[in-house]
Amino acid sequence: MATIFTKIIKGEIPSYKIAENEYCYAFLDISPLEKGHTLVVPKQEVDYIFDLDDKTLCELHLFSKRIAKAIQKTIPCPKVGMAVIGLEIPHAHIHLVPLHEVGDLDFKREKKVLTPEDFKAIAANIASNLEK
Amino acid sequence: MATIFTKIIKGEIPSYKIAENEYCYAFLDISPLEKGHTLVVPKQEVDYIFDLDDKTLCELHLFSKRIAKAIQKTIPCPKVGMAVIGLEIPHAHIHLVPLHEVGDLDFKREKKVLTPEDFKAIAANIASNLEK
Repeated sequence: MATIFTKIIKGEIPSYKIAENEYCYAFLDISPLEKGHTLVVPKQEVDYIFDLDDKTLCELHLFSKRIAKAIQKTIPCPKVGMAVIGLEIPHAHIHLVPLHEVGDLDFKREKKVLTPEDFKAIAANIASNLEK
Repeated sequence: MATIFTKIIKGEIPSYKIAENEYCYAFLDISPLEKGHTLVVPKQEVDYIFDLDDKTLCELHLFSKRIAKAIQKTIPCPKVGMAVIGLEIPHAHIHLVPLHEVGDLDFKREKKVLTPEDFKAIAANIASNLEK
């Protein structure tokens, strides 16, 4: 059965999409730790990130770098942090989270509540800040 | 002034080294969230991971994949998680942490206390489990 991320990539489940390329798809986490919290997913349906082939792993991280730079232009922060946990959804994904302090990358924290309008605006702003 | 990681890479500060290559150096975090918690650092002294050039970023993640597989062979766990925070030491580094549950990747958790003998044994075991 297709994972929820494959359904999102195929457009069968809606998402606040930021960008995609041949290898990856980026969209907002709807349970964000911070405004601008983004998920970057390989289109290849692989559970564990370290099982990705070298080419796909590199493409995933180069795409994430591009997205992280656009997040930082949209949501000013000292750094965009990165986390891969992978114990819940069997499809590898990178969390990109605007960080202000070390504790911000704590997945047990209370999540931000945003409206669909907020999410749409944030996704559109990040997308518009992507370097061509 | 050289960062603490550059001093470790140069051998001016001791570390529980696992492996190195042309681009990266891996050693045990001495304040580990879990046994086997490893830091992977680019030899290039760059503060922010997303400022690394594409080649170095790819090499860093390919090296991390190799290290993560050896960690998992040494410390059995469902997945090795990954985190990059980067707000404390101005030299990019990837945390690789054996995960059993989502909350394990919480940097505010109490750290494990291990003896120098423990650290030495863990580093040697991970190194011996690296694929050639």
